[in-house]
Amino acid sequence: MKSGLQFLLAARRSEITELERLSRSSALVGAVGALTHAVQRERGITNVFLASGGERFGPLRLEQIAQTDGLRQPVLDAFEALDSGPDHHPNGARLFNRIAGVMHELDGLAALRAQVAQQRMTPRAATEAYSRLVGGLLAVVFEAADSAGDPAIARALVALFNFMQGKEFAGQERAHGAAVFASLHIDAPQVARWRHLVELQQQAFDVFRDFADPALASVAQGQQPPGNDAEVERLRHVGWTLGQLAMDEGLASRWYDAMTARIDAMRATEELLASHLRSLCAHKIEEARALLQDEAALLAGSAAAPGAGDLPARLAPQLERSVLALVQEQSQRLQAMGEELEAVRATLNERKLIERAKGVLMAHRQLSEEDAYKLMRQMAMNQKRRIGDVAEALLSMAEVLPGKPR
Amino acid sequence: MKSGLQFLLAARRSEITELERLSRSSALVGAVGALTHAVQRERGITNVFLASGGERFGPLRLEQIAQTDGLRQPVLDAFEALDSGPDHHPNGARLFNRIAGVMHELDGLAALRAQVAQQRMTPRAATEAYSRLVGGLLAVVFEAADSAGDPAIARALVALFNFMQGKEFAGQERAHGAAVFASLHIDAPQVARWRHLVELQQQAFDVFRDFADPALASVAQGQQPPGNDAEVERLRHVGWTLGQLAMDEGLASRWYDAMTARIDAMRATEELLASHLRSLCAHKIEEARALLQDEAALLAGSAAAPGAGDLPARLAPQLERSVLALVQEQSQRLQAMGEELEAVRATLNERKLIERAKGVLMAHRQLSEEDAYKLMRQMAMNQKRRIGDVAEALLSMAEVLPGKPR
Repeated sequence: MKSGLQFLLAARRSEITELERLSRSSALVGAVGALTHAVQRERGITNVFLASGGERFGPLRLEQIAQTDGLRQPVLDAFEALDSGPDHHPNGARLFNRIAGVMHELDGLAALRAQVAQQRMTPRAATEAYSRLVGGLLAVVFEAADSAGDPAIARALVALFNFMQGKEFAGQERAHGAAVFASLHIDAPQVARWRHLVELQQQAFDVFRDFADPALASVAQGQQPPGNDAEVERLRHVGWTLGQLAMDEGLASRWYDAMTARIDAMRATEELLASHLRSLCAHKIEEARALLQDEAALLAGSAAAPGAGDLPARLAPQLERSVLALVQEQSQRLQAMGEELEAVRATLNERKLIERAKGVLMAHRQLSEEDAYKLMRQMAMNQKRRIGDVAEALLSMAEVLPGKPR
Repeated sequence: MKSGLQFLLAARRSEITELERLSRSSALVGAVGALTHAVQRERGITNVFLASGGERFGPLRLEQIAQTDGLRQPVLDAFEALDSGPDHHPNGARLFNRIAGVMHELDGLAALRAQVAQQRMTPRAATEAYSRLVGGLLAVVFEAADSAGDPAIARALVALFNFMQGKEFAGQERAHGAAVFASLHIDAPQVARWRHLVELQQQAFDVFRDFADPALASVAQGQQPPGNDAEVERLRHVGWTLGQLAMDEGLASRWYDAMTARIDAMRATEELLASHLRSLCAHKIEEARALLQDEAALLAGSAAAPGAGDLPARLAPQLERSVLALVQEQSQRLQAMGEELEAVRATLNERKLIERAKGVLMAHRQLSEEDAYKLMRQMAMNQKRRIGDVAEALLSMAEVLPGKPR
């Protein structure tokens, strides 16, 4: 049974290797989160700089550029370490492909900034270029999160990714609102886009709350600056009805400040989530190492046991039983972990189903994203079914739905 | 864009590493398949040896033991190589845990054979001990198959695993039938068990046909010895109605020979599948290496391009565009592979749903496995739905179904 124990230890070591990989992924996610936040700030500042014809935020922009560049190197180092590191990432091809995309955007940053400095760009085009970079950075986090083999870490990564995604939609809302307030005008598609960005934030934070440790989720709730919610709601209302209300040039600043305070608070939460993730990894590694030590001691004991030779029949039957019990206990634990991970994936898949069904409804019924979602929610309530079931039923009926895809 | 290209290459290398890992897993599966077949033969021979009070198959048994032992070392070597090898298996913990279980059974083989030689065991107990070893070996194949990241290889592995599983149910049917014919008596639970083994074979071979390359599936169909199907059907019918029919001591031999011919033919198919899997891996590795070379040449070209320095702005715009196109093309390809893999998993998950729903029906309605399956199939036909959807609906209603779980 010595040989059985040997592979029991190999299984444990394999778990530790996987946890160490997740720990490095978590560190990468931390560095990417910091850079993402800086790029989001640079995007917001650039937006105001361009919209004001270079009057406002000129020095602030240069300061922010320096800050962004300072946070760029740790990310490049982390990317480089992944490429030259010893471990084979199970999701490596997708992860490196995403990194290649980010490198392309980062390489274009100098040219983008030069155009901004010379004001040869619209605020909208600059926002789009910065958003592509942020999107690429988030895609890296997504791939890192997608392959976690430990259910608790997988949940924490999914929660963090969706929090970052929600924060990015808040950043896009800041840019969108700033452009509207700067022009002192809004049209129907702009209102729709704005409402959509608010809804996307809610969806992302809903997923965050579903997957996050409840204690962390409630801390996150409490980290918003007091009065910020009401101020943002007020300004949204003003923005969405700008046609009818008195115009006010101070609105752009108030909006920018309120959204920046909100997003900066989100960054604090994000750091908390990232640090929780790192300690979760560290704790799991420590735990697994302690168990490995116990088991290795058992293996050493079995080798040294009186009468124990190469033939297992000569091993103490008690030791053999205990090793078999360990193998079975390990098997049950791994099975339970696999099922838990399956449940995490099922929840994510359900969300994907809802997204796809929403797309089908939008195409076949010419509905807005918001109305498509509301319709599904209403159907679920009427039929007393979960919205995921409604989405699945809709998808299976997609071919026979009235109307043509757009 | 040189840096983007660097990570494009890293993605490609990561694909190759994963393919090489799958290639080693396929070699492991080949070795395990050979040992499994030998253990199945040893089980069948042992069964006849014990049932005949040591009269029959004595020398054949010793021959088979030598053959089994000869096939044991390559498997042990492959296990050892996995443990000391460089690559981290994404599924390593589960795989090594399964291996630990197999090592435990292999360690017990000498004691098992000693008891058989002294005829201190019932045929049934010996069959069960051998079946545990076979089950453990198949579990290793399952874990190796479960983590394939390439959809074509994943399908081939799923097909092979299910073929091996079907072959094992055929082996269990051989043992069960041999015991019945040896005792010249059958009772209702024995008939039910026998029918169940036939159904399990059909299910496993259905999955095999769903996932296998159609050309290979039809080759597999043709590899059965002529007339074998009819002979097995005839003997099954005799076995299931033994109470009513004339007894015949020659039946045990005829049954053993017919089933052995059938299982040996399956072994030939299994070797074909395993060799197809190995060439699939080799072909994919070759293909990916050729592409890597092309891309590396592009990288070398970009470094040597006139005017190309550290600043990407100075790179030839044409090269930059072509690299961006490569990144996007790679991204789309990986996305498509991910979706294909998702479809493979969905099909497997649907099968698991059907199994679970069958269990619920059996418990709540006191149905046999066969009747539970027939009921679901009937419901699916009546409701014009897929059987997977019926299974899902049944599971979601499990709490409100009439009757109590057993």
